[in-house]
Amino acid sequence: MNYQFSKRMSTIKASAIREILKATSDPTIISFAGGNPSAEAFPLDAIRKISNQLLEKEPINLLQYGISEGDNELISEAELFLNRSESIIKENDKLLITSGSQQIMEFTVKCFCNDGDIVLTENPSFIGAINAFKSQGAKVKGIGFKNGQLDVSELERVLSKKIKPKFLYVIPNFQNPMGTVMSLKVRKEILALAKKYGVIILEDNPYGDLRFEGNIIPSIKSLDKDGIVIYAASLSKIIAPGMRIACCVADKAIIERFVVAKQVSDIHSNLWSQKVIAKFLQEYDMDNHLFQLSQIYQRKCQLMYNQMKKHFHPDIIFNKPSGGMFIWVTFPKSVDIEDFIKKALDLKVAVVPGKVFLVDDKEECHSIRLNFSTPTDEQIIKGISILGKLTYNLV
Amino acid sequence: MNYQFSKRMSTIKASAIREILKATSDPTIISFAGGNPSAEAFPLDAIRKISNQLLEKEPINLLQYGISEGDNELISEAELFLNRSESIIKENDKLLITSGSQQIMEFTVKCFCNDGDIVLTENPSFIGAINAFKSQGAKVKGIGFKNGQLDVSELERVLSKKIKPKFLYVIPNFQNPMGTVMSLKVRKEILALAKKYGVIILEDNPYGDLRFEGNIIPSIKSLDKDGIVIYAASLSKIIAPGMRIACCVADKAIIERFVVAKQVSDIHSNLWSQKVIAKFLQEYDMDNHLFQLSQIYQRKCQLMYNQMKKHFHPDIIFNKPSGGMFIWVTFPKSVDIEDFIKKALDLKVAVVPGKVFLVDDKEECHSIRLNFSTPTDEQIIKGISILGKLTYNLV
Repeated sequence: MNYQFSKRMSTIKASAIREILKATSDPTIISFAGGNPSAEAFPLDAIRKISNQLLEKEPINLLQYGISEGDNELISEAELFLNRSESIIKENDKLLITSGSQQIMEFTVKCFCNDGDIVLTENPSFIGAINAFKSQGAKVKGIGFKNGQLDVSELERVLSKKIKPKFLYVIPNFQNPMGTVMSLKVRKEILALAKKYGVIILEDNPYGDLRFEGNIIPSIKSLDKDGIVIYAASLSKIIAPGMRIACCVADKAIIERFVVAKQVSDIHSNLWSQKVIAKFLQEYDMDNHLFQLSQIYQRKCQLMYNQMKKHFHPDIIFNKPSGGMFIWVTFPKSVDIEDFIKKALDLKVAVVPGKVFLVDDKEECHSIRLNFSTPTDEQIIKGISILGKLTYNLV
Repeated sequence: MNYQFSKRMSTIKASAIREILKATSDPTIISFAGGNPSAEAFPLDAIRKISNQLLEKEPINLLQYGISEGDNELISEAELFLNRSESIIKENDKLLITSGSQQIMEFTVKCFCNDGDIVLTENPSFIGAINAFKSQGAKVKGIGFKNGQLDVSELERVLSKKIKPKFLYVIPNFQNPMGTVMSLKVRKEILALAKKYGVIILEDNPYGDLRFEGNIIPSIKSLDKDGIVIYAASLSKIIAPGMRIACCVADKAIIERFVVAKQVSDIHSNLWSQKVIAKFLQEYDMDNHLFQLSQIYQRKCQLMYNQMKKHFHPDIIFNKPSGGMFIWVTFPKSVDIEDFIKKALDLKVAVVPGKVFLVDDKEECHSIRLNFSTPTDEQIIKGISILGKLTYNLV
């Protein structure tokens, strides 16, 4: 049979990164290509203990159908957790449990956009979000960075045009792929612009709790008094991604629509994960857990950065991030990045080209993204040394 | 802020059944409204044992990111299981693990339909599927039943029109809500029509293994040699729905597109569930498990049917199903069904009006759906007696 696929799904390809990851299932390859949290940081003992107890005491609650909004106990615990240091959940808001933050990206575009509507993202940005927006027929337009911050003038130019975008997608903390942190000034400016032009902000905060240096900057959601911001809080990076649980906080009129989207998408999220995480948030000291976690990430980041300083050609530009999972590395324009990546893979080190994070991947990009959370310390030392030698051959 | 939601999501409402179920969280209400499998049938000991072992031996495999296609071990086990008595997975096919069958409904419409394209369903049909199709902008057209079988003449009339539907959604075994089984003759006829007119069939088979009487009829997928059928095999009804795992089998060109849809929808399905189910399929005697399960369903079905025969007014029409979870009950046209349902709820018995399963819920419908898998035996006896008295008051 000759299949006629839909237009919206014909615009996107399989994620280049996930394809690279599949190619690197070879265990002899050192991968800096992934975006996996450090397995060292998973609270294994707690998950084991809670899971065994739940399966003993209330197995049916883990196995029967649940409600689309999410498990009530998890909703209460997640609300306490998210509101512990700032006001994320406002009076008019509700919290919805989703199957990872990825689902929040899809619900936002599905519930707000008709075919051909415009969605704005930072450029570069998380490819999974860009593809989710395109997969529902939206046109994605990227807003560039200027001195490490979203270019607010460019944003206003785009917003002031006649055809308004439906929403702006941002990752203010330890942005993927660049690792940058949006300043408080820019957060306030884009919120004011969103209000002025009647545009929603989708604030994705998967890495906010992976800070190991510097002070916390208030989320845009906490600054919003007008129901402008949809907030996506992943639990993948701070508990475990295989559990596929995230929280979406937004005005209840939005959540009501998202619940309908959830009913027709996967009915509800896995209940074992929901119940285990609810108990984990309830019974364990999250501040201590997040502190342990930040120590691991700091050590790994510092190690990679030190090795890069030592081994990389001095013309290569990179900053030490204050949190998150990535270091963004920019090469002189003379370097052929694809050739560099190919040669690195021949030497059994995998990295991701920066251009896969561009809204239009035909644009030029002289950067790569390195992940420091997944590899072991030994892999970081060995892999960076290999990449370092290569930089001297190619720069 | 004044939210402007998308057109596609404005056409559907929250599931009437899920709303009824929320309303019936009152434990004193006897609910025949749900579609939950019998909790008696969950393989609790096996799940507990496997889960504890996996969390001890390979916790990281349950907690780290996985691949979108699904866990390799589960894919192999599911292929063996689905192909155990007929040829579901053909040479050109692949199997994708999804977060319940609901996700297969959404992927099919998302990957095949542009805004305004036509999707055909049996009428009445599973409301979650109808809503999933509408939520992606498709126009849903229902094909009626004639003498308990899909009206094939009506189907051909619709298929022969100039504008072709993109696919036909059917539940051949113990249809939801009617409990009917599509005959082999009709299965062959609709497959031939689909081939003739170049239309995909989405075959949803959540209840096929819940047969307690009569002979197995070959699936449409097993009859298909041309890559026409997308097959949805839920594990919710035969293992546990809270785990949210199903299998989709289709031509590899279709699965390739569905994998991209999966990446942007929820990246991958929960790994604990995938791994536990893989081991369950591998280590336990599924034939025995399904036999135990069918015994439970047969007992509950027989009990409800006997009680209905005893207590219901003789003008009310219903058949004893040979499998599945539902009995479809049709009242004389003189009875005000909404009034019956309201009065039943006042007496603390919840049932679902048949009209919520219609493609156009403004059509008339004099039926209700009763579920026999969720209530206990005592609840069946008490609840049917209450409904029985009400039938004598109202008919």
